[in-house]
Amino acid sequence: MLYLVGLGLGDETDITVKGLDVVKKADRVYLEAYTSILLVDQAVLESYYGRSITIADREMVESNSDEILRDAANVDVAFCVVGDPFGATTHTDLILRARELHIPVRTIPNASIMSGIGATGLQLYNFGQTVSMVFFLDNWRPSSFYDRVKENRDVGLHTLVLLDIKVKEQSLENMARGRLIYEPPRFMTVSQCAQQMLEVEEERKEGVYGPDSLAIGAARVGAKTEKFVAGTLKELCDSDDALGPPLHSLVLLGKRAHELERDYAREFAINKETWDGLWKTHYGQQ
Amino acid sequence: MLYLVGLGLGDETDITVKGLDVVKKADRVYLEAYTSILLVDQAVLESYYGRSITIADREMVESNSDEILRDAANVDVAFCVVGDPFGATTHTDLILRARELHIPVRTIPNASIMSGIGATGLQLYNFGQTVSMVFFLDNWRPSSFYDRVKENRDVGLHTLVLLDIKVKEQSLENMARGRLIYEPPRFMTVSQCAQQMLEVEEERKEGVYGPDSLAIGAARVGAKTEKFVAGTLKELCDSDDALGPPLHSLVLLGKRAHELERDYAREFAINKETWDGLWKTHYGQQ
Repeated sequence: MLYLVGLGLGDETDITVKGLDVVKKADRVYLEAYTSILLVDQAVLESYYGRSITIADREMVESNSDEILRDAANVDVAFCVVGDPFGATTHTDLILRARELHIPVRTIPNASIMSGIGATGLQLYNFGQTVSMVFFLDNWRPSSFYDRVKENRDVGLHTLVLLDIKVKEQSLENMARGRLIYEPPRFMTVSQCAQQMLEVEEERKEGVYGPDSLAIGAARVGAKTEKFVAGTLKELCDSDDALGPPLHSLVLLGKRAHELERDYAREFAINKETWDGLWKTHYGQQ
Repeated sequence: MLYLVGLGLGDETDITVKGLDVVKKADRVYLEAYTSILLVDQAVLESYYGRSITIADREMVESNSDEILRDAANVDVAFCVVGDPFGATTHTDLILRARELHIPVRTIPNASIMSGIGATGLQLYNFGQTVSMVFFLDNWRPSSFYDRVKENRDVGLHTLVLLDIKVKEQSLENMARGRLIYEPPRFMTVSQCAQQMLEVEEERKEGVYGPDSLAIGAARVGAKTEKFVAGTLKELCDSDDALGPPLHSLVLLGKRAHELERDYAREFAINKETWDGLWKTHYGQQ
C-alpha cells in the first residue's frame, strides 16, 4: 500500500495519531521536501518517529517515482508531505502512477495552509482562488497571478498568496558546469511578496490593488510561534522583522469582507487607525 | 488557556498528536457538535481520550459561551471542533469573547473539508469561493449560492458546495408548545443537493450550470470509507446509493480544469464515456 501522509504545518507533533501509526509501521518512509518544509529538522522527525527517513527531492518524485513505488503492492510505503498530501499537484501525479501499477493508495489528511490561513480570522468561504508568487529575476517576472487576483477582487474576495521556496537549487554556473553544488535554501518573505505585487501593479496599472490595499502577512501558521501582521501593502513591505523566520504567506483582502473579520484581524494591525480608516472607506460593502 | 482543537474529518485517530495531548491534560473538554460531525460516537471519543466530554450545542456556544470560558484564564479548556477550528464563523466569535476576558487562546489546526476536498483530484488553487446549500422548505428556498456559483463559473473555477446538517432541531409544533423534543439528525445528500441546484437553475434561468454540468459527489472525505462519484448534475441526482452514509459534499467543476484533474477524477465517473465527451466539449480550455 502507498500511504500519503499529511504532516500538518508546524512540528513533529502535528502529525495525526493515524498518520504516526502508519509511519511507524511502514517498510519505507519518504519525506517530500521541496514544495514546503516543517519548522523542525529531519533528525527531529526521525527521532520522534523512531525511524530513518529518505528525503525525496523534486527530481526523485517527478522523474524517479518508480523507486518510491517499488514493491508497494506488497509492502507499505509512507510518503510524507508537509501540510495536506493534496496541496501540491505533483502528488496527484504520484497517485496516478501508482494506479497504473495497481498499487492501492490511501491518504491521511492534515491541516493545509489553504485552510490553516483561517487563523487570520478571515472566513474561508470569502476566499477566491489561491495564487503563487515566485522570486522575480531580472529577465523573468511572471505576473499571471495579477490576473487571478483581479478575478478575485472584481467580486470582492480575499486572495491567499503562497510564497516561493527554493530548496536544492543550483546556480546557473554550477548547472552549466555539471557541478552538483546547491545554493542555500531561500524562502520568500511577506515584504518581498508585497514589494513584487506593488511592482507589478506599477507595470500593469489596472488598479487591481495599490499601496493602500489592506492585507495580512502570516508567518509559521499553525505553529506555536505563528504570527500575523495586518496593514497596507506598503506597510507590509517592511514587516519581516515583525513576522520573523519562514514560512510566510500573504492574504490580500477582498471588499466583501465582514465586520467580524475586521474586528478579529484588527488585533494584528501595524497601525489600528489606518486599518479602521481604510476599512471604513473601502471594505465591508457587499 | 482556551485551546481550540481540530479533530480532523474521520474518526478518533484523526486528531493530531499535539491535539490529543491537549485534550488529555485539559481541565474541561467540550465538543462542538452542530456545524459538523465525526463518523464515530461520543462514547468512542471519550473512551479513546480517556475522559468525559461535554457536548456544546449551538445554543451553548452562541448564547452561553461564558460557561465554556469559565476560569479559562487559570485552567485549561479544550474546545474540540470537527475539521479545523476556523472552518465555522462561530468559533471566531468565541475567540473574540475570550480576548475580551483576557484569556489566552491557542489553536491546533487539522484537516478541513476545505482542503480535504483535494482528494477528488481537483486542484485546490482552481477553486473559487465555497458555498453552502440548506434544506429547502416550501416557503424558504434561499438561492444566494447561485450568484456565488455564477461568479466562480464566470472565471472558470470549481465550487465546493457544503451541505446542510440539522442536529437537535425542534419541529415548529414542538417549538410553539415549548416542548424540548428534538427531531432526528438529518444530513443533506449529494442527490438532494444536485436536485435543488437544478431546481434553482430552472427558476433563475441564467445558464450558470445545467443537467449536463460535470460535478463530483464526495462522501466521508478523509475517512477509510471515503467515496467519490463523478458525473453530470443529472446523474448525481441519483447517486446516494453509490455514495453511502453521510457526510456528503459536492464540487461543481469549472471550465478552467486541467487534464490532470480530468484523468484523476475519471476513475470516479458513473459513465466514463459521458465524462470524456462532456469534458472534451466544455472543459479544460484555458
